[in-house]
Amino acid sequence: MSFLQELLSSLEAKARQNGVFVSRQSGREESGLARLESACDTLMHHGGEASRILIARQALSAYRTLDTEQQRAFFHLLADQYAADPAAIHAAYARYRETEDNTALQALGSACEPRRQSLFRRLNQCPGGTYELVQMRSDLLAMLKDHPELAPLDADFAHLFASWFNRGFLMLEAIDWNTSAAVLEKVIRYEAVHAIHDWNDLRQRLDPGDRRCYAFFHPATGDEPLIFVEVALCRGIPDNIQSILESDEHVAPEDADTAVFYSISNCQAGLKGISFGNFLIKQVVEELQRELPQLENFVTLSPVPGLRKWLDQTRSEGGLPGSSDVLERLEAEDWLDDKASRSKMASDVTALAAHYLLDARRRGAPADPVARFHLGNGARLHRINWPGDTSAKGRQQSHGVMVNYLYEPGRIEQNHEAFSREGTIACSSEVRRAAKQGQQRFTRSRDKA
Amino acid sequence: MSFLQELLSSLEAKARQNGVFVSRQSGREESGLARLESACDTLMHHGGEASRILIARQALSAYRTLDTEQQRAFFHLLADQYAADPAAIHAAYARYRETEDNTALQALGSACEPRRQSLFRRLNQCPGGTYELVQMRSDLLAMLKDHPELAPLDADFAHLFASWFNRGFLMLEAIDWNTSAAVLEKVIRYEAVHAIHDWNDLRQRLDPGDRRCYAFFHPATGDEPLIFVEVALCRGIPDNIQSILESDEHVAPEDADTAVFYSISNCQAGLKGISFGNFLIKQVVEELQRELPQLENFVTLSPVPGLRKWLDQTRSEGGLPGSSDVLERLEAEDWLDDKASRSKMASDVTALAAHYLLDARRRGAPADPVARFHLGNGARLHRINWPGDTSAKGRQQSHGVMVNYLYEPGRIEQNHEAFSREGTIACSSEVRRAAKQGQQRFTRSRDKA
Amino acid sequence: MSFLQELLSSLEAKARQNGVFVSRQSGREESGLARLESACDTLMHHGGEASRILIARQALSAYRTLDTEQQRAFFHLLADQYAADPAAIHAAYARYRETEDNTALQALGSACEPRRQSLFRRLNQCPGGTYELVQMRSDLLAMLKDHPELAPLDADFAHLFASWFNRGFLMLEAIDWNTSAAVLEKVIRYEAVHAIHDWNDLRQRLDPGDRRCYAFFHPATGDEPLIFVEVALCRGIPDNIQSILESDEHVAPEDADTAVFYSISNCQAGLKGISFGNFLIKQVVEELQRELPQLENFVTLSPVPGLRKWLDQTRSEGGLPGSSDVLERLEAEDWLDDKASRSKMASDVTALAAHYLLDARRRGAPADPVARFHLGNGARLHRINWPGDTSAKGRQQSHGVMVNYLYEPGRIEQNHEAFSREGTIACSSEVRRAAKQGQQRFTRSRDKA
Amino acid sequence: MSFLQELLSSLEAKARQNGVFVSRQSGREESGLARLESACDTLMHHGGEASRILIARQALSAYRTLDTEQQRAFFHLLADQYAADPAAIHAAYARYRETEDNTALQALGSACEPRRQSLFRRLNQCPGGTYELVQMRSDLLAMLKDHPELAPLDADFAHLFASWFNRGFLMLEAIDWNTSAAVLEKVIRYEAVHAIHDWNDLRQRLDPGDRRCYAFFHPATGDEPLIFVEVALCRGIPDNIQSILESDEHVAPEDADTAVFYSISNCQAGLKGISFGNFLIKQVVEELQRELPQLENFVTLSPVPGLRKWLDQTRSEGGLPGSSDVLERLEAEDWLDDKASRSKMASDVTALAAHYLLDARRRGAPADPVARFHLGNGARLHRINWPGDTSAKGRQQSHGVMVNYLYEPGRIEQNHEAFSREGTIACSSEVRRAAKQGQQRFTRSRDKA
Repeated sequence: MSFLQELLSSLEAKARQNGVFVSRQSGREESGLARLESACDTLMHHGGEASRILIARQALSAYRTLDTEQQRAFFHLLADQYAADPAAIHAAYARYRETEDNTALQALGSACEPRRQSLFRRLNQCPGGTYELVQMRSDLLAMLKDHPELAPLDADFAHLFASWFNRGFLMLEAIDWNTSAAVLEKVIRYEAVHAIHDWNDLRQRLDPGDRRCYAFFHPATGDEPLIFVEVALCRGIPDNIQSILESDEHVAPEDADTAVFYSISNCQAGLKGISFGNFLIKQVVEELQRELPQLENFVTLSPVPGLRKWLDQTRSEGGLPGSSDVLERLEAEDWLDDKASRSKMASDVTALAAHYLLDARRRGAPADPVARFHLGNGARLHRINWPGDTSAKGRQQSHGVMVNYLYEPGRIEQNHEAFSREGTIACSSEVRRAAKQGQQRFTRSRDKA
Repeated sequence: MSFLQELLSSLEAKARQNGVFVSRQSGREESGLARLESACDTLMHHGGEASRILIARQALSAYRTLDTEQQRAFFHLLADQYAADPAAIHAAYARYRETEDNTALQALGSACEPRRQSLFRRLNQCPGGTYELVQMRSDLLAMLKDHPELAPLDADFAHLFASWFNRGFLMLEAIDWNTSAAVLEKVIRYEAVHAIHDWNDLRQRLDPGDRRCYAFFHPATGDEPLIFVEVALCRGIPDNIQSILESDEHVAPEDADTAVFYSISNCQAGLKGISFGNFLIKQVVEELQRELPQLENFVTLSPVPGLRKWLDQTRSEGGLPGSSDVLERLEAEDWLDDKASRSKMASDVTALAAHYLLDARRRGAPADPVARFHLGNGARLHRINWPGDTSAKGRQQSHGVMVNYLYEPGRIEQNHEAFSREGTIACSSEVRRAAKQGQQRFTRSRDKA
Repeated sequence: MSFLQELLSSLEAKARQNGVFVSRQSGREESGLARLESACDTLMHHGGEASRILIARQALSAYRTLDTEQQRAFFHLLADQYAADPAAIHAAYARYRETEDNTALQALGSACEPRRQSLFRRLNQCPGGTYELVQMRSDLLAMLKDHPELAPLDADFAHLFASWFNRGFLMLEAIDWNTSAAVLEKVIRYEAVHAIHDWNDLRQRLDPGDRRCYAFFHPATGDEPLIFVEVALCRGIPDNIQSILESDEHVAPEDADTAVFYSISNCQAGLKGISFGNFLIKQVVEELQRELPQLENFVTLSPVPGLRKWLDQTRSEGGLPGSSDVLERLEAEDWLDDKASRSKMASDVTALAAHYLLDARRRGAPADPVARFHLGNGARLHRINWPGDTSAKGRQQSHGVMVNYLYEPGRIEQNHEAFSREGTIACSSEVRRAAKQGQQRFTRSRDKA
Repeated sequence: MSFLQELLSSLEAKARQNGVFVSRQSGREESGLARLESACDTLMHHGGEASRILIARQALSAYRTLDTEQQRAFFHLLADQYAADPAAIHAAYARYRETEDNTALQALGSACEPRRQSLFRRLNQCPGGTYELVQMRSDLLAMLKDHPELAPLDADFAHLFASWFNRGFLMLEAIDWNTSAAVLEKVIRYEAVHAIHDWNDLRQRLDPGDRRCYAFFHPATGDEPLIFVEVALCRGIPDNIQSILESDEHVAPEDADTAVFYSISNCQAGLKGISFGNFLIKQVVEELQRELPQLENFVTLSPVPGLRKWLDQTRSEGGLPGSSDVLERLEAEDWLDDKASRSKMASDVTALAAHYLLDARRRGAPADPVARFHLGNGARLHRINWPGDTSAKGRQQSHGVMVNYLYEPGRIEQNHEAFSREGTIACSSEVRRAAKQGQQRFTRSRDKA
């Protein structure tokens, strides 16, 4: 029996004596939920620092045995019994109003903090605890829609994660064919934009000399990537994804003038809202500049995931009256193998996409989530490519449209400020012209989506 | 010019245009303090995520140029202008009282949080920022005594550091002769108990097969150790430090039955109050058990830093009337080379030390800080050794008394709980007897120190 | 242009001036073979130490462009023009006979050494050269059968490789799911006993807690494994391979009493005759004992690759007259799904296999190569298992028979000596009895294979 | 008892039974020499591959106990009883003369090989054996002068080491303040040109941004450096060593135009004659070019270790009649603090040094060993600096003269060839002129040293 196990045994003996682990005394096998509840209780009230690690481990391993219904019950327990105490808040405020001094301020701040934050901090002390808590929030997020009353719980997770996963703790690592299989299989699993089908496919993405992949890792979550980006080195700015994913043509890295970010995947559902992508792109640009000083363009080749849905919905609401023709042909997909047909349609498709990207808004920001992300980072909408992705997924999402966003160091801050303050979209004149055409050609009145 | 530098330039141009960096326009070289203030201001109000890293870097490098007086001015700025806003707190509370809902609660919690916490978080985003903030707090602590009005600032540091340096993020590493010189020179510098005089001395501590050293590191502070412990493997529990530090006799690790923790040093003044020692000892016990399963005793050989001061003060206040004789001889130090004299004094010295350790209290806890630490961890006061440390420092602190604290896995939790709830000290009967003798022999009424 | 490239340019200029690179002057693109020949010539006669690395690199990259016919031409060049010079040998011997002193001895030794050894040493100086030379020998071995006149060349490779790949330079490394994909794909490719079909299959072999894999690497050949062994931890000695390869049942490592070496694969055809297996097994036993001291048995589960061929041939030559019945049934493979049939045949099959393993000899040693290897290492033939491998390959090779060889530390040396001196096979009494039955039951006169 | 130890025990039992370890049976403690002899005998005649590792370990550990006299006895044993067998050579030659085929050739080559080579190869199989053999040769070299009859033994070591330490196996590693103390203390110990006094001194050499240090390591000798070079980055070619060793002025690496190799130390006496320096310098030039492409000059600042001795000897033989004046003043060392005196002497000192470097020859090559090394590598004698080294050692060796040798990529091969073929020294016109002056001014007839 190891030192820590012995510690735990003695603590359990004591706790049982005190009636803490009540349900065990009944002789029946305690349920995971019951064990979890009693471990959380012990964690808040008993035990020295060292034994807390073990109790936290027990709590987390009990959590892992829960089914969805039990998880929900546990979350409600946290929401109800590990909340802040209004009476304590009122009392603390009364004192603060009197003195307005710092002691009273801190006391009030503490009273406002739900007790579960302290519980989460203690659970986080056991090795591996951070990852388990990320998983726990992932479970919570899945049921948040049906249980909006659990939102406060999620806010506490988000608050703590923002601190634990702060930028200064992240480590950028290159991923390549020398990376461990344990990490690579996660890359296969987490790739969210252009699926990696198997290990051969993965090798195609990582091994050629003109490909790069970078991920952020966090010391407390070990070999779990948080986010990764795949990069292709090219000559010129590419206008379709198939030339990157399927071509056997490669360029010598020192001959490339362009780095294309063609896939960015967030890996941990439980870290929703803790944003890494902006830092990742900019740090990767730094890395690439150091390695290959001749690179001139840093650009994405990005999907437009909301385009088709928006077109369909807008039409069903009577918008875009002039677009029937082109949309029908797009849906028929006869353009796929018909070059002449494509030539005729191209200008219309581009105009519709530009109109969507520039004019379709949700609470002031672009309706398209990928546009929102890159434009918010200070990138510039450079070019609309059609057909840019002829895969089934690409056609299903956006009739095959893809977009290049350009990261220009000298303009990023301006773009970012103009976007975040006034919603202004940085955009090439070509795309702006197309958007105007789109609006004029297909709508009578300005679309309100 | 690198990507990030270019970002920064464009941001600076913009800021200057907006009159943010006012003092620069005067044409004079801006002072470090002015640059720091303006960088902090920019960090709170301007700039995208990526450029914040650069502004944080500027702020921290400006901070490094400050002299003590400027530091103080900066800390007062933080205390005054980066505090919480009472009006906002009152308003938030008014809303909360009305609804008692979670949105209002979070708003109130946020209103209570001094704005400097957000500033510190942003400074922490630049690589190396964590260590610089630890240094900043170290500077603050040095002036806290003369400037108690800065205590709220310190509380904010402590709050953030407790989260950033949480146990789950620490990495235990063995330190030995294969460790890099960059780390080893820090071990020399930070050793706080038994000074390491030079590299040869260091080698004596690390290289023999029966010595071990372990440190905690944090991913964001790189090769800066947070705390380290030095261990000697022995046969039997040693009763003096010179046999460990100066002897050339060594034991084969697999023949040892005892691991002695003979020096524990906190390395970062700026992490005061964030305790690592308890975890460190217990994790090292685990490590040693794994490597050398035959070990039976895990014990310290510890100084008693408060003993002599307490004796002197107590006497000057008229306490310990019966101790004049022995204390005079102790001060005369004639016992150093006089074995017979030592034999006669030993029982008295031990009784005085035991009386001090068990009966001298400060706010209920043992007055001696080392005793407080180990007893609080759940260790047991095993034996008083005299003379245990004949070095000048040892005599100066405690007339040469040293103590063994025993870490017994099966008893740690009980000891810890009894100590933290009722102030009960776990103690061998031998020491308890000595303490009783000390009290009876040297005092009339119970000492009140 | 880098330093070394500049060196090379100046050397080439000089060489061209001297007419060394003759064929280039013709204006036609020089063939790979011509470039190789001229580079070898330069390597032997021109250039300082540093430029030799570059010339070696050129030579090896020219070699890589050769087709089989050109390789053969190159090997003949080496055999003819890079041989030892008989006249020089006679002269050196004449001097040696006269003096018998050491100078003359060394000169004679040098004269006996084919010049290509020196060439190979120089090729070996360029980074990666070692691996390329191993590949070169692999090419040579493939044509040796048709070109026995190239055997002296092979002897030179073998001589040098024995020195370069000496045991003291090898590094044992554990292979697991954290190993880099670049190494793991080689494991898939090189597995020679029980094919690994894909990455999922590989994961099954490496990832469960009761599986281990170890390989030898050499510093000069980087991540190219030389040999690897796959190990399963079990309770008891397993009697069939499917329970290891296909079962989902696993045992906790600390509960295992047996380590089974179920697959050993040499990876480099070009290192034929440089034996690593014996060392590998014994070093892995050491590793496993250290990690899991409770292990009692170290045993193989091995194929009998020569059994079926020997049975067929012996029968065709009129041997084993009594075996027709059982062999026919074995060939019909009706035993595969017929348990009753199997029961009846088992004793006959075992007896035939035992007879083969103990009595079929080639130049005094067991005819079966796997038996030769393990018995030569000092292992003991422990048990014959039927059916031990029901895969198509297993049935094809040996009608499904597998064998356990036992490595018993206390007996290995005796077994080894008895085997290598007198050809005695260490063997359980059970197997010996079966072999006797086999001989009596199926042959009249002792088989002479 | 581990697997290998058990192996060994059983082998020893067997050996004792066979009377191999004769001396042990006498009951007396066997001497180290006797144990070594018997272990070598066993290694040649008994034991399987695996137990050989253990016997080799025993042999080497027995060797370590020998005093010089016993070492000598052992070396004589090797020289006498582990030599080649003349009778076998004559027989093998007889067969070869008859057939001239490859089998006979190989047999003759084998017969010429002293048996101790095989012994050394077997000793080399135990981990750490390579380093121990290097130490063994170091011991041998120390006694070779008094025991020239052991030279054949040394030739065998040299032959094997050339193969084991071939260029392709060496690893270049940067040494800096992050290197392990275990390696750094070896750098302190092995520095042979400008002594490193302590760890602070070492830090001065390694830590500043404009210093570099590189070493070759070999996989079989672990953290034992074979050779290392210290480099300073400067602006311009420095003319004295004190400005490098003692100055606190440093240059930003990216502002340097010159890399100065100011100290090269061979670390292993036992590897005498296996040259690494040439490769090291050229590979370090490559490294530096990669890191700092703006570097223009790669140059040494080298001692002239033979100068003073040659001057003294030449004068004592009546050469250099015109040099009395300047040599007396040099010896008086009054120039050290007398700038005016220095100015007057400078041209004479330079002329004498140039005359020595260009005209003093030993067997055709420059008499000065450092000149021989760099000129042999293809460097060019660029400049004579006086005073270049005012340390006691510098004055003692060469009256303070130092030299720059220039490594110019485009000329190295020519220089090397001209030097090695015709003894031509590549040299600046300035130095050539000085040498001519030296000859004319101080000698009547050409010096013959």
